[in-house]
Amino acid sequence: MSENLLKILVLHGPNLNLLGQREPEIYGALSLEQINEQLHQFAKEQGAELHFFQSNSEGELVDKIQQAKSDYQGVVINAAGYTHTSVALRDAIAAVELPTVEVHLSNIYQREDFRHHSYLAPVVIGQVSGFGPESYRLGLMGLIHHLREKNKEC
Amino acid sequence: MSENLLKILVLHGPNLNLLGQREPEIYGALSLEQINEQLHQFAKEQGAELHFFQSNSEGELVDKIQQAKSDYQGVVINAAGYTHTSVALRDAIAAVELPTVEVHLSNIYQREDFRHHSYLAPVVIGQVSGFGPESYRLGLMGLIHHLREKNKEC
Amino acid sequence: MSENLLKILVLHGPNLNLLGQREPEIYGALSLEQINEQLHQFAKEQGAELHFFQSNSEGELVDKIQQAKSDYQGVVINAAGYTHTSVALRDAIAAVELPTVEVHLSNIYQREDFRHHSYLAPVVIGQVSGFGPESYRLGLMGLIHHLREKNKEC
Amino acid sequence: MSENLLKILVLHGPNLNLLGQREPEIYGALSLEQINEQLHQFAKEQGAELHFFQSNSEGELVDKIQQAKSDYQGVVINAAGYTHTSVALRDAIAAVELPTVEVHLSNIYQREDFRHHSYLAPVVIGQVSGFGPESYRLGLMGLIHHLREKNKEC
Amino acid sequence: MSENLLKILVLHGPNLNLLGQREPEIYGALSLEQINEQLHQFAKEQGAELHFFQSNSEGELVDKIQQAKSDYQGVVINAAGYTHTSVALRDAIAAVELPTVEVHLSNIYQREDFRHHSYLAPVVIGQVSGFGPESYRLGLMGLIHHLREKNKEC
Amino acid sequence: MSENLLKILVLHGPNLNLLGQREPEIYGALSLEQINEQLHQFAKEQGAELHFFQSNSEGELVDKIQQAKSDYQGVVINAAGYTHTSVALRDAIAAVELPTVEVHLSNIYQREDFRHHSYLAPVVIGQVSGFGPESYRLGLMGLIHHLREKNKEC
Amino acid sequence: MSENLLKILVLHGPNLNLLGQREPEIYGALSLEQINEQLHQFAKEQGAELHFFQSNSEGELVDKIQQAKSDYQGVVINAAGYTHTSVALRDAIAAVELPTVEVHLSNIYQREDFRHHSYLAPVVIGQVSGFGPESYRLGLMGLIHHLREKNKEC
Amino acid sequence: MSENLLKILVLHGPNLNLLGQREPEIYGALSLEQINEQLHQFAKEQGAELHFFQSNSEGELVDKIQQAKSDYQGVVINAAGYTHTSVALRDAIAAVELPTVEVHLSNIYQREDFRHHSYLAPVVIGQVSGFGPESYRLGLMGLIHHLREKNKEC
Amino acid sequence: MSENLLKILVLHGPNLNLLGQREPEIYGALSLEQINEQLHQFAKEQGAELHFFQSNSEGELVDKIQQAKSDYQGVVINAAGYTHTSVALRDAIAAVELPTVEVHLSNIYQREDFRHHSYLAPVVIGQVSGFGPESYRLGLMGLIHHLREKNKEC
Amino acid sequence: MSENLLKILVLHGPNLNLLGQREPEIYGALSLEQINEQLHQFAKEQGAELHFFQSNSEGELVDKIQQAKSDYQGVVINAAGYTHTSVALRDAIAAVELPTVEVHLSNIYQREDFRHHSYLAPVVIGQVSGFGPESYRLGLMGLIHHLREKNKEC
Amino acid sequence: MSENLLKILVLHGPNLNLLGQREPEIYGALSLEQINEQLHQFAKEQGAELHFFQSNSEGELVDKIQQAKSDYQGVVINAAGYTHTSVALRDAIAAVELPTVEVHLSNIYQREDFRHHSYLAPVVIGQVSGFGPESYRLGLMGLIHHLREKNKEC
Amino acid sequence: MSENLLKILVLHGPNLNLLGQREPEIYGALSLEQINEQLHQFAKEQGAELHFFQSNSEGELVDKIQQAKSDYQGVVINAAGYTHTSVALRDAIAAVELPTVEVHLSNIYQREDFRHHSYLAPVVIGQVSGFGPESYRLGLMGLIHHLREKNKEC
Repeated sequence: MSENLLKILVLHGPNLNLLGQREPEIYGALSLEQINEQLHQFAKEQGAELHFFQSNSEGELVDKIQQAKSDYQGVVINAAGYTHTSVALRDAIAAVELPTVEVHLSNIYQREDFRHHSYLAPVVIGQVSGFGPESYRLGLMGLIHHLREKNKEC
Repeated sequence: MSENLLKILVLHGPNLNLLGQREPEIYGALSLEQINEQLHQFAKEQGAELHFFQSNSEGELVDKIQQAKSDYQGVVINAAGYTHTSVALRDAIAAVELPTVEVHLSNIYQREDFRHHSYLAPVVIGQVSGFGPESYRLGLMGLIHHLREKNKEC
Repeated sequence: MSENLLKILVLHGPNLNLLGQREPEIYGALSLEQINEQLHQFAKEQGAELHFFQSNSEGELVDKIQQAKSDYQGVVINAAGYTHTSVALRDAIAAVELPTVEVHLSNIYQREDFRHHSYLAPVVIGQVSGFGPESYRLGLMGLIHHLREKNKEC
Repeated sequence: MSENLLKILVLHGPNLNLLGQREPEIYGALSLEQINEQLHQFAKEQGAELHFFQSNSEGELVDKIQQAKSDYQGVVINAAGYTHTSVALRDAIAAVELPTVEVHLSNIYQREDFRHHSYLAPVVIGQVSGFGPESYRLGLMGLIHHLREKNKEC
Repeated sequence: MSENLLKILVLHGPNLNLLGQREPEIYGALSLEQINEQLHQFAKEQGAELHFFQSNSEGELVDKIQQAKSDYQGVVINAAGYTHTSVALRDAIAAVELPTVEVHLSNIYQREDFRHHSYLAPVVIGQVSGFGPESYRLGLMGLIHHLREKNKEC
Repeated sequence: MSENLLKILVLHGPNLNLLGQREPEIYGALSLEQINEQLHQFAKEQGAELHFFQSNSEGELVDKIQQAKSDYQGVVINAAGYTHTSVALRDAIAAVELPTVEVHLSNIYQREDFRHHSYLAPVVIGQVSGFGPESYRLGLMGLIHHLREKNKEC
Repeated sequence: MSENLLKILVLHGPNLNLLGQREPEIYGALSLEQINEQLHQFAKEQGAELHFFQSNSEGELVDKIQQAKSDYQGVVINAAGYTHTSVALRDAIAAVELPTVEVHLSNIYQREDFRHHSYLAPVVIGQVSGFGPESYRLGLMGLIHHLREKNKEC
Repeated sequence: MSENLLKILVLHGPNLNLLGQREPEIYGALSLEQINEQLHQFAKEQGAELHFFQSNSEGELVDKIQQAKSDYQGVVINAAGYTHTSVALRDAIAAVELPTVEVHLSNIYQREDFRHHSYLAPVVIGQVSGFGPESYRLGLMGLIHHLREKNKEC
Repeated sequence: MSENLLKILVLHGPNLNLLGQREPEIYGALSLEQINEQLHQFAKEQGAELHFFQSNSEGELVDKIQQAKSDYQGVVINAAGYTHTSVALRDAIAAVELPTVEVHLSNIYQREDFRHHSYLAPVVIGQVSGFGPESYRLGLMGLIHHLREKNKEC
Repeated sequence: MSENLLKILVLHGPNLNLLGQREPEIYGALSLEQINEQLHQFAKEQGAELHFFQSNSEGELVDKIQQAKSDYQGVVINAAGYTHTSVALRDAIAAVELPTVEVHLSNIYQREDFRHHSYLAPVVIGQVSGFGPESYRLGLMGLIHHLREKNKEC
Repeated sequence: MSENLLKILVLHGPNLNLLGQREPEIYGALSLEQINEQLHQFAKEQGAELHFFQSNSEGELVDKIQQAKSDYQGVVINAAGYTHTSVALRDAIAAVELPTVEVHLSNIYQREDFRHHSYLAPVVIGQVSGFGPESYRLGLMGLIHHLREKNKEC
Repeated sequence: MSENLLKILVLHGPNLNLLGQREPEIYGALSLEQINEQLHQFAKEQGAELHFFQSNSEGELVDKIQQAKSDYQGVVINAAGYTHTSVALRDAIAAVELPTVEVHLSNIYQREDFRHHSYLAPVVIGQVSGFGPESYRLGLMGLIHHLREKNKEC
């Protein structure tokens, strides 16, 4: 595979560290570590290297996105609860100008009204929701595809 | 590949027959035939057989979903303009109880307000938007993944 | 029975052709054909002749209402999903000036918010909802009663 | 008629005691007593016994619904003005768990906006509106039908 | 005074029996009895006879309005809290077709938002608010004027 | 009459100069001059002197209210169309701190929605609407009553 | 216990007389009499005497609050359905100026939207909801605490 | 007239085929054929050739707009009921990039609220409403003027 | 031309005196004087005489409309910014009962939300928007057509 | 006291560390330490052990709730400003499935509109507001009561 | 000071001529003349010449802005009540394309809801509010800074 | 300069540390360090000492405001994204009762709707927006002016 190695940051927002323990009938039985491991394997096959970061703090997630600028070519983010309340995260994504993909485990349109609105959606490339942990993999593929296309143009 | 062949219906809503001609700087240079051809190749590798249908008529799309019940295991739909106005399509999807995935070429959250609401979203498995023609491929993968998992459970 | 024979058009909107197959625990086990047959028998006893038409297409339903003008004295309509989205159907009913009754199998006020609003309600004589297939019979009786009263006045 | 006699309570809300006197061109020339008498005759033929109660007081109507539990199999209610403002009546209906039908003389959706919303609608079996006094008879029929069906199941 | 004697009903809604005791700095030091006495004197000079009724019960107020039909030529009502919540009172006023004037001690548009809306306003001749007990006298005069004009026309 | 002479400004807003010509079946046959004349006579009996001003210009009405401060003890205003759109008039009334009464010929709550809201209502003593030209006289009486009461307190 | 005996009125609104019979899985198996008995015992230990009153009539509840003024030092009220619709009750509470606590058996914020708004909340000391019958005891304690503190200040 | 012949498509939406029969006191006595004939004559004088198409089906109207691309220089459309509900028509107009003018027989701003919003307005050149059949002629003139100006620029 | 000469008032609202200087790429290079001259020529050919008036003052525009009553048979108005904020202008148009046509240079539905609502639209014959200076000519033609038709009826 | 010792976490949100210093006329003169000390004493008598945590950081509060799962049987939370803006806190409470009680010092329904909505309310057992520091004690009692009842059932 | 002299127009909207007399505890004791004098001194030191204009008329303010184009380099405006209601002023500012700064004496976000929205804000450089007369000085400095920077670029 | 030295805290919210790098065509080419340096120089001349703090964390900003109480006389804050979402910051500002000024680099009223609302505005002295880095200097001047005036009063 002669294409350059892509470095991608995968961000997990608040409460996602509880995956596997929390309502497994809804969110699936996989822990966050297992999801990360699967993504890691898949990315390797695609010529991409992933780094993972989870935090319950809005400020730490903003910090991380800012720092990503120099080290990564793109971001996959599941901002969880901050999706619906954080202008700061939105501004960080817009500011660093790194191609970003928004993912959600559940179909947010089948849940409470306040989950139907995302502050991030207008500043990301695309959004994937409803496929469980598979949402991450699909979002990652979309991002890689986007980065490869962009590189071709250059 | 010992898994059963999956039969999947891919539905394209109004004005998608103009792809390639219509605002190529936004929607890309691929025609609908080219997108279908690429999806067909990809599906074949995944052990799935696709059938395609495009219509500008809400009623014909409803008819097609109803008929899909006996012939297909799942549906990928880009309902285009009907996404935001059709209760009839939503009811058809809910009635046939076929796993359905909703896709959009553009990031509908970066466009006019009336495009932020989807009547279909609450009755589909998941939604993929913003990746151009790649949205179809990601949506199809999500659907195949979902169907394979469901089969394992049986 | 010395009263004149009444000719009435019964219109079924999108997805109602699936009755009996679709979520029978909600919509009952009767097929549309069986409902039509029962209505037919009942109408005969009341000195009325019914004609039935089902379509998933908004345009075909509009066509049918327009053509009804010369052949029928009244209309019973279950517009299903189009109840909530079609100004064209409303305008057709208002234009032909045939007494029309709106029926719904389910109690639309117990369902999603978007089903609480009917474009048709302001242009029909009355509305019956929530009694399952019996809604049709009640609506038909209301219409016949209305037509008999009107005839007496002449 | 081998079916069991059904006992049904017919409740009339505020101002309905004025029927016949009040705007006869809209509400018809029948007094409440005449409507009750016609319903009584009709119910007898159907093997049902009716009891009538009218009050202008929200509290008395709530009292009556509570007491109905032990003596009746169902309720027909025209809550008139309380339809749009009374959570107490709604809670009473929900609490006694007697099958209840909501009726209105006029088409409430052709009137002022505040009459488009009914607090009762979500807790009743069904709703009939717009047929004048005939609304009562249709509602009663819907209720009897519902009760006979329920009895068959037992 | 050759004009006919006018008989007018003055209705006081919930909590108005507390006048004089309740927040006198806002509502003034006059008790309801004193207000009634002043109105009585004033009406006598105008050739009108007043009858007064206060109740905390919505139903009793509705009863009273209905009974007013045969005994009075007009109604002055301060419905207090029921102004903002009672469709039943509105319907009673509309039904008896007695010229009615709505009065309020305080300027309801300077108070909480929910007091800005009156269910009665659309069915009364006019509304007077904000003049303290004088509101009653102004409303009464407006009513008498209206009734005298109407009599002239006959 | 030993009470001091009261000087009161009566302001008529846009289009009120057309009274008598404009839709007389709604607004009555009296011209603005005739209304002014009647008010003048009535005020004289009450020991008050009126000055009248009509303008179609928001700015001129604001000017007039400002100048009223030194010459008048109170204002009666029918701001007509500016009632619903002018913050400038509201601020002028609030600034000069002259007791002001708002009047309307028609019942503004029976008209278009945008007429239900008054920018002036929260800064005036009281409001009278719906009695035709009589609204002015009632409003004037309310104002005189208010000013006499205030004088007594001093 | 040297503190003065406190006299407190406990008001139960519409349908609360059905407690124990009505949906026991939601509202618990205790009847209103049993709740009253428990509260009575508890109050006695706290040096308080309770009187209980239940009514389905808004007007009777308003009457009771008015009469409470001279006999009680405070009120605990579960206004049930009237919580969301009664301005009259709110005005009564505000008028008598007796410290009042609002309680609800269920968590009203987990129920229908219209139950999220309380007309009483802005005029009471505090609100307790969601603890079943324990809500009454907590509300009563909050009230007693408040009254003891107030007495100390005097 | 040395200018090039312009080819223009005139589209009539649902229920417009009933013109002349339907409420002639509102919509005028002209049938759609007569309107088309008059437009045809007028266009001929202006050096334009018109083709007409009416359909009650949203999908057929979308089809027609798409096909217009290669054969016409501009479109005049009266989308009737679909004006207010069709995103698909809007997208078709935007996609083909043919100069389009929106016309309405009646003044849509004097009718029901839902008719005040047009999905088409933001993607057309201009809008003409309220002049009866004359609206078509004015819209056509506006379109021809626009096309002639555009040609001059080239 | 045997038809009577029509006298028509053309009103230009605030900031239209800047035409030609102000953002010519949007509003065109014609000055208001040039537009008036063109309209004048066109009207002459149609047997109509035009008078023009521009003002930045809402009150002056209201004055002018009132005075138009005796001198003109109709009005063409581009109220510019006052379109969206002036009830006074609306009331003036309604009061003088002169046939009036509303015109806009730009397509107001492609601009800010607050420009989508017109206070004038419900009281005018018709509206033309989006054709630049040509909007005036089309509006004028619509008005002349309307006046000629009305004259024929007499 | 033979019942098991209950371990309960008491969480204080942003700015509560300022208690005693901040607007003491509103929030009381007690510091957070004093409130904690009183709660501690009270809990001890009830056989419960409390741990306290205050933070101005949303993320730290989320962390703490997650960690509570293994060490505590329940949570008392005053989320202060985060009550109205934090979906992350809501999700944390829902995820750990520990019985939680929401408390507020002030009556949040008497304050600004944005404080009337709580993201936490739908996922907690119950809510206590308006009693000052006493709100904590009442909330704690409600929680202990709830836990004791639950233990009995096991 | 070698920089060019800047000419700046300072506009005061309705009721600002009352400053010093009107509610001095809120708006301060300075008259408009005193504010103008202070600004004049300050501007002189900054190499700017100010001209002042106050009007209660929306139209006159629009006129003044239009005329400013040729004589001034920038505008400072306190539009007072017109801030919230005038599209005409907004359009004038946008049309003349003079750098404009919006100032308010009071903090408009601490006042009534309708004062939170400004029609001018989107077309000005910046906004200063809440500092009393100092707001003018700060706004003026911001404008001078902006003009100096712009000049440097040329 | 004999006036006391003022100590002022300057707070920068999320993403402001990216200034100079982030969209320089919008936010200018100055880095946050350069802005701080300029402010520092300017403050020194005014007899004020500044301390600077930037954080992406809402909680840290709240902490800092609380600690400011004892060390500073005032605060200048650009809360960036937290302006629109943080009740916690608002409560902190209200609690410490330090005069605070809100500044924004860009004109927030020219951006997305959600940026038009500020939680901070009602609790600060004043607001400055739209002047780029100059907004900080103007806000600082307004604060110093306010503090000097307050000191004079003492």
